[in-house]
Amino acid sequence: MLPSITAKWRIRKYSGGAASLQEDDIATEYPLTVRLDGEEFATIVCSPTDLEEMIIGFLASEGVIRQAAEIESLRIDEERGFVYVELYNKHSTSKDEVSKRFIGSCCGKSRQFYFHNDARTARTSMSRMTISPAQCTALIRLLQNSSGEFKLTGGVHNAALCTATELLAVRTDIGRHNALDKLFGFSLQQRIAITDKIIAFSGRLSSEVVLKAAKIGVGILLSKSAPTDLALKLAEDLGITCVGFIRGNEMNVYTHGHRIVDEQNESEER
Amino acid sequence: MLPSITAKWRIRKYSGGAASLQEDDIATEYPLTVRLDGEEFATIVCSPTDLEEMIIGFLASEGVIRQAAEIESLRIDEERGFVYVELYNKHSTSKDEVSKRFIGSCCGKSRQFYFHNDARTARTSMSRMTISPAQCTALIRLLQNSSGEFKLTGGVHNAALCTATELLAVRTDIGRHNALDKLFGFSLQQRIAITDKIIAFSGRLSSEVVLKAAKIGVGILLSKSAPTDLALKLAEDLGITCVGFIRGNEMNVYTHGHRIVDEQNESEER
Repeated sequence: MLPSITAKWRIRKYSGGAASLQEDDIATEYPLTVRLDGEEFATIVCSPTDLEEMIIGFLASEGVIRQAAEIESLRIDEERGFVYVELYNKHSTSKDEVSKRFIGSCCGKSRQFYFHNDARTARTSMSRMTISPAQCTALIRLLQNSSGEFKLTGGVHNAALCTATELLAVRTDIGRHNALDKLFGFSLQQRIAITDKIIAFSGRLSSEVVLKAAKIGVGILLSKSAPTDLALKLAEDLGITCVGFIRGNEMNVYTHGHRIVDEQNESEER
Repeated sequence: MLPSITAKWRIRKYSGGAASLQEDDIATEYPLTVRLDGEEFATIVCSPTDLEEMIIGFLASEGVIRQAAEIESLRIDEERGFVYVELYNKHSTSKDEVSKRFIGSCCGKSRQFYFHNDARTARTSMSRMTISPAQCTALIRLLQNSSGEFKLTGGVHNAALCTATELLAVRTDIGRHNALDKLFGFSLQQRIAITDKIIAFSGRLSSEVVLKAAKIGVGILLSKSAPTDLALKLAEDLGITCVGFIRGNEMNVYTHGHRIVDEQNESEER
């Protein structure tokens, strides 16, 4: 059985001058090792929810698969934290790919977009989707209200696949990449048309987050947090509209601002 | 020449109903590829500061070196973003180590502590250091006041090596692991006695952050953010005092609370 997304922990809480013993809710970190066609592929530390979606999204993001249908079987050993994936076309890791393996991270060790898989899998967005500033702030507000876990633990990220007015799916994880991989897996499993969708995200817009958005295929990326310069350069290149620091009714439009239109009758779908 | 830690970006800022063009400060993401004894080892995306310290700390954290003196040469090609490291005892990556390479991250794909290098390099803390609650909140306040970059960009993490009353060194990075690796490299280069020191940190206490603290060798880890359950289990095992959610004069003591003492005359040094 999977552990819960939060765990209880006994703490000593100091408030003002006084200390008291309390029970606190803590976000769970669940290590999941991916074995792909019999070989160890990666270990992902994640929140223990939507694991099948996450693995499908992760493999697609790594360029291993393009569609969920390429997976022959996917079996999760919840107790031991292993997932066994078999592909119809067996995966082979070349020696060169292994030696050039970049260590991916949201904030630190990271793959560059112009290396191997990313160049193959990150697509330039041709989305003609538009959204108004008021819709941007409303989506982020919906996202923030959707997460009980964040309010409880203060330690998880949320990502949502949206139309201009609604959250279609919200995924939560201690790892922001995982939250996006879960959305990616969801969109692949449900075969959702993606170019007229938006991603709303709680975390910072790093280069890897922009790459994930490009791989998923959305043209608009909304965040309540800050971007980095490399993320914005990538977004320029990949045709992605980045909007950050969405707080209250303030927001910053960083790239491809043509998709943010003040007068908005209805989202223009492709 | 290295890029600056922040870059300018033209944005369209919405505030209330009005939009205006402005120039904004954005945190720089600088990709640095480590070549170790002639082989590509990893690519680290970081803030372009204190790179030599970061590389030394990273290699120590990965279990490649134990002391800075094991490095024969370290040359940084700032233009191309490469660092060439030669060790006195040449590094060899076994096939098995490569295939079991975990993808490390602050929030997502991560190495587990009980795998390979971590088990060798993370030490159980024997620190007899103590600190008062008021000193904890004061250190976090000092840390927050120390970072001009965060105020400017909202997008960097800070880590400081501290005594009970002072910040000895503050390091900043878009990647929280990197900020800690920079401190690790600093402590190795300066040969600083570490068991009577404290790390104050702006980011979340994940399992990898606790592991880094154990590798660096401190017994007390302070953060203004939330911990995860795996981080706390590791901290229990490794003898590390974790204090989180340090905000104003509130804080939560999660593990090894014996090092947090209400009456504090002077920090008890080993």
